[in-house]
Amino acid sequence: MDAKSNETSEVSALVHGIGRRARAAARVLALAAGDKKKAALLAAARAIREDTTKILAANAEDLAAARKNNATAAFLDRLALDEKRINAMAEGIETVATLPDPVGEVTAAWDRPNGLKIERVRTPLGVIAVVYESRPNVTADAGALAFKAGNAVILRGGSDSFHSSQAIHAAMTRGIAGAGLPEDSIQLVPTRDRAAVGLLLSGLDGLVDVVVPRGGKSLVGRVQAEAKVPVFAHLEGICHVYVNAPADLEMAKKIVLNAKMRRTGVCGAAETLLVDKKLAGSHLKPLVEMLIDAGCEVRGDEATCKADSRVVAASEQDWSTEYLDAIISVGVVDGIDDAVEHIARYGSHHTDSIVTDDREAAESFLNRVDSAIVLHNASTQFADGGEFGFGGEIGIATGRLHARGPVGAEQLTSFKYRIRGSGQTRPG
Amino acid sequence: MDAKSNETSEVSALVHGIGRRARAAARVLALAAGDKKKAALLAAARAIREDTTKILAANAEDLAAARKNNATAAFLDRLALDEKRINAMAEGIETVATLPDPVGEVTAAWDRPNGLKIERVRTPLGVIAVVYESRPNVTADAGALAFKAGNAVILRGGSDSFHSSQAIHAAMTRGIAGAGLPEDSIQLVPTRDRAAVGLLLSGLDGLVDVVVPRGGKSLVGRVQAEAKVPVFAHLEGICHVYVNAPADLEMAKKIVLNAKMRRTGVCGAAETLLVDKKLAGSHLKPLVEMLIDAGCEVRGDEATCKADSRVVAASEQDWSTEYLDAIISVGVVDGIDDAVEHIARYGSHHTDSIVTDDREAAESFLNRVDSAIVLHNASTQFADGGEFGFGGEIGIATGRLHARGPVGAEQLTSFKYRIRGSGQTRPG
Repeated sequence: MDAKSNETSEVSALVHGIGRRARAAARVLALAAGDKKKAALLAAARAIREDTTKILAANAEDLAAARKNNATAAFLDRLALDEKRINAMAEGIETVATLPDPVGEVTAAWDRPNGLKIERVRTPLGVIAVVYESRPNVTADAGALAFKAGNAVILRGGSDSFHSSQAIHAAMTRGIAGAGLPEDSIQLVPTRDRAAVGLLLSGLDGLVDVVVPRGGKSLVGRVQAEAKVPVFAHLEGICHVYVNAPADLEMAKKIVLNAKMRRTGVCGAAETLLVDKKLAGSHLKPLVEMLIDAGCEVRGDEATCKADSRVVAASEQDWSTEYLDAIISVGVVDGIDDAVEHIARYGSHHTDSIVTDDREAAESFLNRVDSAIVLHNASTQFADGGEFGFGGEIGIATGRLHARGPVGAEQLTSFKYRIRGSGQTRPG
Repeated sequence: MDAKSNETSEVSALVHGIGRRARAAARVLALAAGDKKKAALLAAARAIREDTTKILAANAEDLAAARKNNATAAFLDRLALDEKRINAMAEGIETVATLPDPVGEVTAAWDRPNGLKIERVRTPLGVIAVVYESRPNVTADAGALAFKAGNAVILRGGSDSFHSSQAIHAAMTRGIAGAGLPEDSIQLVPTRDRAAVGLLLSGLDGLVDVVVPRGGKSLVGRVQAEAKVPVFAHLEGICHVYVNAPADLEMAKKIVLNAKMRRTGVCGAAETLLVDKKLAGSHLKPLVEMLIDAGCEVRGDEATCKADSRVVAASEQDWSTEYLDAIISVGVVDGIDDAVEHIARYGSHHTDSIVTDDREAAESFLNRVDSAIVLHNASTQFADGGEFGFGGEIGIATGRLHARGPVGAEQLTSFKYRIRGSGQTRPG
């Protein structure tokens, strides 16, 4: 065996070992009482606060290395921790700790004519692998949420946050073990070797039930293309706001501005504004002017270009582009059919909103647009587990299987059927 | 291009075309009213009855070919149709037609402090591929159930039922099209070329959302190993009955006999009987004698061999064998921990039952056994969508993602979030 394949087989043994320990921890965790999981998460939060100095020292090491590699200011900002950010991490864990325990919840119950009593009850999913970029806080967020739902989690963070993630992880597992639950409930892959990611995506021969990628489009795209197990994710958020007649101009302006400009880098940010033909004379110009005056570049169709000389002509490519920046594509559509068709063709099944005073048109839009989240008279930036009241999210999914929209603790569960009888046998 | 690759590319074009038409049909079907889908299914059932002569003629062709190929009597029986079986197929479709429409059902609704009204509503899954063996009735069953939940379905039946399936399919689509819904809602792959199966399992570049295999272990195994999209299935049903002390002997006998012998070839049939050590003196012998007297071969551990001279010694392999025949493995376990551990080690997460008068032990078993269906004082043969009151099933799933247990119309749906506001924007 040469050095390279020797190394590969070492990583494989390491990651499979992590998978086996995760499965064993998942079996224990699945039966842990809600109070015990809550206490363990509160202890993990406490341990993170206690370890503030250690975590900051580890983070300083990561930052120094990143600076040496000429990381961008934005990258360094995402990577950097301070006391406030560490405290926010601990608070995030505490919020998750106090959520109701989804495991054991009876979601349906009915009796059969033969007297059998059937219940559908939530159970954990099992083992969740989370693959993320160099944002140390994901270690705490994702670990806590998966744990809350009784799952074991395998974390594989970005190489640049290696020491920070290790320090956060060490604190969390100390808290969890101290509360009497398995240390292996939350494991962090202790190598920067990229082969570890491929192994997790393979599902480790049934040891991993689902993969959650957290990061940019290239990471998510790789995970979706390579994973042999289900993935909860969205590749991109090409979110639309459609202003349909009649619509209050002030409300439309407020929603469009918020949907596009509140934060331009989040997946729920609007990337396209569609204005109904009937409003082209009244609403198009004020909406476009507002956006440009707010510092947003507008790329428009012919009608939009005519509305303001500062509008740039949109290319075909623009309609399917997730800018994640202060840029928006704006077009005029001819009625709701045209709007729905545009979204079906160019959208990403993430989040789309209609602004209108026409209730019937709104209901039609909500039914017909095939996206995880559809809104009437509200900003697309509400696409967030916290805003849904989930107390956190591990990400937003645009697939149709199992989880869709913000993935909170509830979506990280499975279910089983419990049937209670009194000697029933099946005839025939 | 040589003849072979030419052929391959023809099949690929054919199956991709089917996929594209399925996706287009799914978009129409997703918005079809419940009454219209119901009327379409009732028309499909009527068309099957009208075509009885044609279907029988097509079936005669399939049977003649199968006899020529020296098919077994069991195989021919599964393949054969008569007026009664055709009528039963039509009745099955009518039962599904009259089920409540799962699409549009609001499964959760809540208000946020900012006034947003959030609803989670059921939507169709999309496009479902069903790959099955030579049982013509699956064409009708699976087609109707997927359609009921607003999904387009691509059927790929066994080669030996080719003509029968085509005749059934032609009748169904005539009924559906006559009721004004897309003919492409239910498509049957019109080739025996096995490459078509591989193409469906690839997901056709996002055109197929989920695959459901219907058939024996080799078919399911191939689908699970090859599919690049989620699969709803069970590979095998290694179902256990555990008799725990104290237990009424008569009830235990009744349940064990039914669980094993009612039908030995179904996935919910018991394959292993576990008797608690405390009952080894009182219950083991009568249970074993009953089984042997009923014509069941018993393969036992040491204690069981001592109970009756007709017991064969079980090998290690027996504990993880799905016999699907009048054979059972029987062992003595030391308490509930031991029973749960045995099932975790050798079971298949399908269906397991405890027989006991000890309510606490029963609850512990129901919580701790990680199977899709767990029962107390009832036969494992209740593992069936009809027995659950689902009005039908497309199969039983043992995975933890999305669908688990009997997969009825409800499990063939996804969901989305509808949010109604009055101008809300997200702060911060």
